[in-house]
Amino acid sequence: MANLETVLARADDAIDESLDRLRALVRLKSISTDSAYAPQCREAAAWLAATLDEIGFSTRVHDTVGHPVVLGHQDGARQDAPHVLFYGHYDVQPVDPLELWIGDPFEPRIEERAEGRKVITGRGTSDDKGQLLTFIEACRAYKDVNGTLPCRVSILLEGDEESGAASLAGFLETHADEVTADLALVCDTGMPDPETPAIPVSLRGLAGEEIIIKAADRDLHSGHYGGAAANPNHVLAKILADLHDENGRVTVPHFYDGVHETPDDIKAMWRTMDMYGEALLRDISLSQPSGEKGRSILELTWARPTAEVNGMTGGYTGRGFKTVIPAQASAKISFRLVGDQDPNAIRAHFRDFVRARIPGDCSVEFIAHGTSRAVQLPYDSPALDKAKKALAGEWPNPAVIIGMGGSIPVVADFQSKLDMETLLVGFALEDGRIHSPNEKYDLRSFHKGVRSWIRILDALAE
Amino acid sequence: MANLETVLARADDAIDESLDRLRALVRLKSISTDSAYAPQCREAAAWLAATLDEIGFSTRVHDTVGHPVVLGHQDGARQDAPHVLFYGHYDVQPVDPLELWIGDPFEPRIEERAEGRKVITGRGTSDDKGQLLTFIEACRAYKDVNGTLPCRVSILLEGDEESGAASLAGFLETHADEVTADLALVCDTGMPDPETPAIPVSLRGLAGEEIIIKAADRDLHSGHYGGAAANPNHVLAKILADLHDENGRVTVPHFYDGVHETPDDIKAMWRTMDMYGEALLRDISLSQPSGEKGRSILELTWARPTAEVNGMTGGYTGRGFKTVIPAQASAKISFRLVGDQDPNAIRAHFRDFVRARIPGDCSVEFIAHGTSRAVQLPYDSPALDKAKKALAGEWPNPAVIIGMGGSIPVVADFQSKLDMETLLVGFALEDGRIHSPNEKYDLRSFHKGVRSWIRILDALAE
Repeated sequence: MANLETVLARADDAIDESLDRLRALVRLKSISTDSAYAPQCREAAAWLAATLDEIGFSTRVHDTVGHPVVLGHQDGARQDAPHVLFYGHYDVQPVDPLELWIGDPFEPRIEERAEGRKVITGRGTSDDKGQLLTFIEACRAYKDVNGTLPCRVSILLEGDEESGAASLAGFLETHADEVTADLALVCDTGMPDPETPAIPVSLRGLAGEEIIIKAADRDLHSGHYGGAAANPNHVLAKILADLHDENGRVTVPHFYDGVHETPDDIKAMWRTMDMYGEALLRDISLSQPSGEKGRSILELTWARPTAEVNGMTGGYTGRGFKTVIPAQASAKISFRLVGDQDPNAIRAHFRDFVRARIPGDCSVEFIAHGTSRAVQLPYDSPALDKAKKALAGEWPNPAVIIGMGGSIPVVADFQSKLDMETLLVGFALEDGRIHSPNEKYDLRSFHKGVRSWIRILDALAE
Repeated sequence: MANLETVLARADDAIDESLDRLRALVRLKSISTDSAYAPQCREAAAWLAATLDEIGFSTRVHDTVGHPVVLGHQDGARQDAPHVLFYGHYDVQPVDPLELWIGDPFEPRIEERAEGRKVITGRGTSDDKGQLLTFIEACRAYKDVNGTLPCRVSILLEGDEESGAASLAGFLETHADEVTADLALVCDTGMPDPETPAIPVSLRGLAGEEIIIKAADRDLHSGHYGGAAANPNHVLAKILADLHDENGRVTVPHFYDGVHETPDDIKAMWRTMDMYGEALLRDISLSQPSGEKGRSILELTWARPTAEVNGMTGGYTGRGFKTVIPAQASAKISFRLVGDQDPNAIRAHFRDFVRARIPGDCSVEFIAHGTSRAVQLPYDSPALDKAKKALAGEWPNPAVIIGMGGSIPVVADFQSKLDMETLLVGFALEDGRIHSPNEKYDLRSFHKGVRSWIRILDALAE
């Protein structure tokens, strides 16, 4: 413990240099979706590899079908301590609309907000360059003080998290031996408020599906044909309306197969966090939950499956009016999945559900979009307990165990491909504007993030 | 009757000259929706005024808020005979896509189709230049033989039927005294087959309405918010699905107020015409009616009211997938109306119906689009009987009494503004391609159309 305090003090002393390194990394324009920025992605990978080498990692930059993957390893002081794999991504979202940025997105600036709160602005500061550096700077402080890390640490940094290229999945398969550790650590999530760290344990999965309803072989004049010709808009509306019952439950047969109730103690904890759910809705000018009845907002978004119509269109949708009966109508529907729901089974059941509602003279086409299974990590585990205790030493409030409405595909891949659980701890705040203009990361998140990882590594290595 | 045969023979002898005049009129590019063609519209009006003057009408070209109206009058031989007002329109639809036309749309050509069937091609040949000329040429034959018309005839020709400018409605009000006759005649409709003339007596009206459902103040990520935030797509789909019950009836309260059952003898006649309804659907690759159960296709499209969703849109509708919960979703709905249904009452009832289905946190905006009342002409009247007998002399099959799915606003205006009933007789065929490339009019329709009007004028003047 005496040693831990020394490492923390070292991180404190070095925080300005850590921040300089964050500035340097943010300046590299590693926009992964735009191939024009491929050289900058490679530059960011090289910068990170050099940084890891500098603090004693044995690092290699691997080419992939997308942007490079950086992978480094370093043994720790204690041979019997668990081996951890830290994951982060160095690529960032595009910056348009550029005109909404106050200042150059790739020239980070320190700004003082209300009440002495300081932030660093720039694309990637929160997502994920600032967050991944909290871990690297934690390792650096350890090395500076002790000359070793407390346990064996691997660091895996990818460049296709924002691009959809999914280059990492293949890399994990071809390098399974090298990347499999006892536990994965991810710093790509947030905190519900600036005093309260959070550890997500349930991440919803996804199944996307598009349906196209067709009837007549052309668009029709609704005067000549209306009342006799099938209208795909009507057929589609009926299917979409049928998706939920009056209690907000999804009506597709077998949809809830594999959905498990959240443990009572976790639900009780979430009830004490109602204000976050209310704030979630208030922030978007809503005041009441609209999904399954009888469940809290947090449970609905973190631990319950959904069927959402993300898009629908049919007929004339421009200005004015056109009395047309369209030849087709279509919708894009996504299912958010939890627990052990099988995306492929849900797709099949949904298609049966739709086919059963296609009247004579109409037909349906399906287009399959992406799937990912939900991730359900244990609500309690030794690693989780250690992390909670470690975070309790750093933050005013105890860590909360949360869910996440969206998916983090790499966590699902770690679980399914490498049989490796993940501990997710992140320090981004709700107003971090990730993916938006004027992204920022709080300096307090950065500094206490470094300190948090020092504490967590120390606890995990015990 | 001997005199009638002489007039008919005169029309036969003059048919080539009549056709030359149709060619001359089609060459005038009177596209009313495109202001670049305003001079050509005026030229068409002037050409028609000169033509009417030439056969003894006292004619004037009236300026309107849109294109000019041509109005001519001529007394008839019999002072006690009814005064008839013939209506037609000289404006035409645009011609794009031009590349689908075989030949210049404004350079009419005579083409021989299968079995010696001859047609004249060009924009406006069927709609409505060819048809309006059948009446003018009928008048000319009368004048040539007798020096007079059989009854007082007024001719009203407008230039905004295709433009939506609705300049005629105002003209009818300001010139009510001058245009009100005992009976209006309109030649702007068609025949179910080349042997069978048709007289429409019911024309459906229209009420158009747009609804916009709103929830959150921005588009949301369906991962973060899905399951808790209201989805306007779901609200809209439910409203649209609720519009019809399982028997295809519209569920809006009071919707059927003012809807009268079609007389049994008319329904029986329509049952003998089932093949036309079946052909209507077969032509668009459908095989079964989709509206109210237990009614024939012809009844559904001619004499029953409908609610059709002409357009709907919400969320992401481009290529690929975007897991968004949209801030709003919207639909355009048109109601086809029959009998005494009140468009404004239906709009009000529909809005109540929608408002009752807007959940908390959601709101709805309404945009009113156009309305027109249905027209229900008598299923039997002296004028109708005379016209049927007259047509029986000209065509192989007796005239059928039909309905029309779409509205002809001028007929509603004649009824509501001038308290004047209308007799609709037209000779366009189903394959006339009106509003489409390669519009055509059969020479047989043109020739027998002239002869039909001679017979009808003769019968009405009796």
